[in-house]
Amino acid sequence: MESSSEVITMMHGSGGSATDKLIEEIFEKEFRNDILSSMEDAALVDVGAIGKIAMTTDSFVVDPIFFKGGDIGRLCICGTVNDLLMRGAKAKYITCGFILEEGLKIDTLKKVVASMAACAREAGVEIVAGDTKVVNGKGGMYINTAGVGIFDTELNICASNAQLGDSVLITGNIGDHHAAILSDRMGIENDIESDNAPLCDIVGNLLNEGLNIHVLRDVTRGGLATILAELSQASKVNIELEEEKIPVSPTVKSFAGLLGLDPLYMGNEGKAVVFLPEDEADRALEIIRKSKYGEKAQLIGKVVEKDETGKLLMRTSIGTKRQLQRLVGEGLPRIC
Amino acid sequence: MESSSEVITMMHGSGGSATDKLIEEIFEKEFRNDILSSMEDAALVDVGAIGKIAMTTDSFVVDPIFFKGGDIGRLCICGTVNDLLMRGAKAKYITCGFILEEGLKIDTLKKVVASMAACAREAGVEIVAGDTKVVNGKGGMYINTAGVGIFDTELNICASNAQLGDSVLITGNIGDHHAAILSDRMGIENDIESDNAPLCDIVGNLLNEGLNIHVLRDVTRGGLATILAELSQASKVNIELEEEKIPVSPTVKSFAGLLGLDPLYMGNEGKAVVFLPEDEADRALEIIRKSKYGEKAQLIGKVVEKDETGKLLMRTSIGTKRQLQRLVGEGLPRIC
Repeated sequence: MESSSEVITMMHGSGGSATDKLIEEIFEKEFRNDILSSMEDAALVDVGAIGKIAMTTDSFVVDPIFFKGGDIGRLCICGTVNDLLMRGAKAKYITCGFILEEGLKIDTLKKVVASMAACAREAGVEIVAGDTKVVNGKGGMYINTAGVGIFDTELNICASNAQLGDSVLITGNIGDHHAAILSDRMGIENDIESDNAPLCDIVGNLLNEGLNIHVLRDVTRGGLATILAELSQASKVNIELEEEKIPVSPTVKSFAGLLGLDPLYMGNEGKAVVFLPEDEADRALEIIRKSKYGEKAQLIGKVVEKDETGKLLMRTSIGTKRQLQRLVGEGLPRIC
Repeated sequence: MESSSEVITMMHGSGGSATDKLIEEIFEKEFRNDILSSMEDAALVDVGAIGKIAMTTDSFVVDPIFFKGGDIGRLCICGTVNDLLMRGAKAKYITCGFILEEGLKIDTLKKVVASMAACAREAGVEIVAGDTKVVNGKGGMYINTAGVGIFDTELNICASNAQLGDSVLITGNIGDHHAAILSDRMGIENDIESDNAPLCDIVGNLLNEGLNIHVLRDVTRGGLATILAELSQASKVNIELEEEKIPVSPTVKSFAGLLGLDPLYMGNEGKAVVFLPEDEADRALEIIRKSKYGEKAQLIGKVVEKDETGKLLMRTSIGTKRQLQRLVGEGLPRIC
């Protein structure tokens, strides 16, 4: 962009030549593919002949935009890719809607867009349509990503499909994203990094190996306890976790302890729970641990009984059992 | 919502029970259908066996949220539906991402969501996935809608498909949306209303009647001149408009004249241009005029020659000819 346009102005959102320049010099440059075209109102994409697709959407308002281990650009691709994967779909096509606040540095936008493009390449998705708006504000930005995933065969992976006897696996340590964002906001120096990552390798490998997956769910806002409590209700089963099996890194554990936070309710951006028959759990764990971003996967619990009012129970390390509720009230805002 | 929650607070974006309440009591209540589920990360939808879909996205930041003839809710459905239609697709599925500013009145959100639901019913689309975030701000809201459209047969309606000899039609009066928003902002009393409307009846009828449509384009930001200049470049043809044929209502004409605005560059939210062979133009005009929102359709010009540098030309009412450029610089910001 020319030097007089170092920050975003209302002109960039007018739909005239300034908008055009932004699209050409930043978005098209990074996102270039055979489908994306600034000339068309909608993109045409191939989805295979099975006749079913997965669709999802997510807006990203994370503050700060750049944080240890990631940024809003990587986050928005991971979030939408992972949501598609959680239905057993192959994440394929992403649309992105940028809402830029006046005063946003063009260089910041460039970095974010480059990060999105890199993450899209990593996840094997194409950005096929986009939109840019400019609003008054303090130089920040929001991104919406919506996505389409496709299927080779019909699958029934969904929140209500947890079965009695299922093992419950988590793909790695919990709490990292939440702790990284909070460290950044509070100016605390530590080596905690966000876990924001696309889980396509993990899910792809599990499906390719023919494992009989019942439920997949990424563990984002509200944390592990909230997500599992929701799943127990959706599937009408009681889930029992073993506290000592839940993987939390020592630094996140002590960071959380210091601030009085419970890792079970801390948000993540690259972790999922997997439900599948007990006799497939060891094989699944092996596959996940060999997959990218799955090295620290653990078997953390099981589905212990059917129950119309589905509960999440926790067996503590000293042998007591208590019920865990969903997050009530305020989690960390603007974490994703 | 309970009375203590009359406005949106950060709690509504936390992913905990406050978010849940918002989803249940506002979004699910209005958008309810067989596909939408707050329990799933992604929705599964049927897209037919042809193996191709259309995808699009748009964010809406219009200020004010309510304006004469419409609101941000109606606008966001119309915008995404129309973008899908412009490729000849049937608009089918919509995802919506809400970014709510702290302090937004719950009642305002309810009205907007009800308006979205009504417009979705009118346009025959289903809202299949959604997301809500809360940010600091002044009680406003932004909405992103992304959409999927499906096809019965393969079509090649696109920006680069204008052919020599094509007639150029517009589906109605231009400038209304722009003038309505501006009147609202300036506190000017008049009877101008936004044209925000879904064009599914017009496009559906044209396609059902088997007309050989080459290009469809909705005339939004940048106005008729910008959109046609873009199409002339994409198709490498010169387009000639006849000034006196371009439909502008008398009130918009005098409003624009008063403010020194050119209706050719004023934004619209329910108008499209249609390119098709000259010998089908009369029939197309007849079909459009009988369709909802198409009563004032006009034949406004034609494709006069091939030209690598595609130009938009205007024959004025006194017989002179001049070239029209795309909008340069600042149009009316936050119009959509």
